[in-house]
Amino acid sequence: MTYYSPSTERGVRAVLFDVFGTVVDWRSGIAAAIAAFAEPRGLDVCPYAFADTWRQWYQPAMQRVRSGARPFVSLDVLHRENLDEALREHGLEPGEFSADELDALSRAWHFLPPWPDSAAGIAAIKRNYIVGPLSNGNTALLLDMAKAAGLDWDLILGSDLSGAYKPDPTAYRWPAALLGLEPGEVMLAAAHEADLAAAREAGLATAFIARPFERGPDAVGPTVPSGDWDLAGTSITEIADRLA
Amino acid sequence: MTYYSPSTERGVRAVLFDVFGTVVDWRSGIAAAIAAFAEPRGLDVCPYAFADTWRQWYQPAMQRVRSGARPFVSLDVLHRENLDEALREHGLEPGEFSADELDALSRAWHFLPPWPDSAAGIAAIKRNYIVGPLSNGNTALLLDMAKAAGLDWDLILGSDLSGAYKPDPTAYRWPAALLGLEPGEVMLAAAHEADLAAAREAGLATAFIARPFERGPDAVGPTVPSGDWDLAGTSITEIADRLA
Repeated sequence: MTYYSPSTERGVRAVLFDVFGTVVDWRSGIAAAIAAFAEPRGLDVCPYAFADTWRQWYQPAMQRVRSGARPFVSLDVLHRENLDEALREHGLEPGEFSADELDALSRAWHFLPPWPDSAAGIAAIKRNYIVGPLSNGNTALLLDMAKAAGLDWDLILGSDLSGAYKPDPTAYRWPAALLGLEPGEVMLAAAHEADLAAAREAGLATAFIARPFERGPDAVGPTVPSGDWDLAGTSITEIADRLA
Repeated sequence: MTYYSPSTERGVRAVLFDVFGTVVDWRSGIAAAIAAFAEPRGLDVCPYAFADTWRQWYQPAMQRVRSGARPFVSLDVLHRENLDEALREHGLEPGEFSADELDALSRAWHFLPPWPDSAAGIAAIKRNYIVGPLSNGNTALLLDMAKAAGLDWDLILGSDLSGAYKPDPTAYRWPAALLGLEPGEVMLAAAHEADLAAAREAGLATAFIARPFERGPDAVGPTVPSGDWDLAGTSITEIADRLA
């Protein structure tokens, strides 16, 4: 029942997932939270445009940590800081709102909706493999999300435990080392090919999951990957079938 | 639905469990592994006596780490070293066996049988609370055990992540801090009152679970605790009912 990856003599034992975009639909979830924030306050913002702006600050904020320009801080801290930037870009002054209001809005990243196949696909893979997130999210964020979305992980090891943000090689190798596995015994499942490329470089097996609607109906992404990954599918349930 | 502990103004949000003795029957599991090791090799050892000897080295080995006499090493390392000590006490020379044989025997601690109520009780508590181990076991050990015994934790944070062995206060406080919880929002459920006393001292809520047969039929333990804990019961399912 164990899938033998071309990248290793030993079988894959753990399938770890990118989360934002691969397991959950961050854009719809954040847009809904923005709409619920803006409407009662009479704010004139497009929720989807705001979600995209907020997300645009994601990589630059982590890059300051990856480059060593800033010590590691959790993604909760970065999301909260990036919210201030997004508010300003949309003509709003963070100081107009209370800290509690903005902290609560920022916690929307803890409660993002799963794609329709995510919970069932993860549960199916769990029967024969270790399953968990391999995300830049912190442990508390990933735990809240798992409880709310019904993601039945075996364990949750957030980036605040490894102290590294993908695509730093440490982020990929640390979970394997902790679990006493070779890197090739861990498979990363992700919708983003840059993430998969970095995982492969770190020695992991790879599975591509197409999420063409991650960035909305006006920016539909590919359903077929450009890279040659160990597995590819259009849902986590499809990857589960191929692993079984 | 949230249980409000007398020890905190806020409700308990996570119920974390001692594992060896509280969730799993380590003595029966280790005795079975010893019997399976000894019989084909024609060794004359009492499996239960050997299990007790192996376990006797548990606290002294951790105490060297807690006292600072030795840097933190994982419980897998300590169990493997303690196996050598137990073999010698039973008149066997560790050098008579291969490293692979003894490593495999030592991994019996990863695959201990749960008490009959453990899986169902944890699943019931999981509906309304965060559930996880709060054990001196390392993450890989606790993960193997969870998969084999059907313990459906939300997350597994082994002692190799906190870098502390109970009853070091760090062992109790670190999981709460990681999850952004106050100590009083975490409840330790355990069969051992010294563990509960240290958890209370660290600010946690406490639940006593009687496991009178942990040390076998010749050393039956109490079913009623001597201390005044927030909750007490004779099974995890009973604690689940009281928390609901």
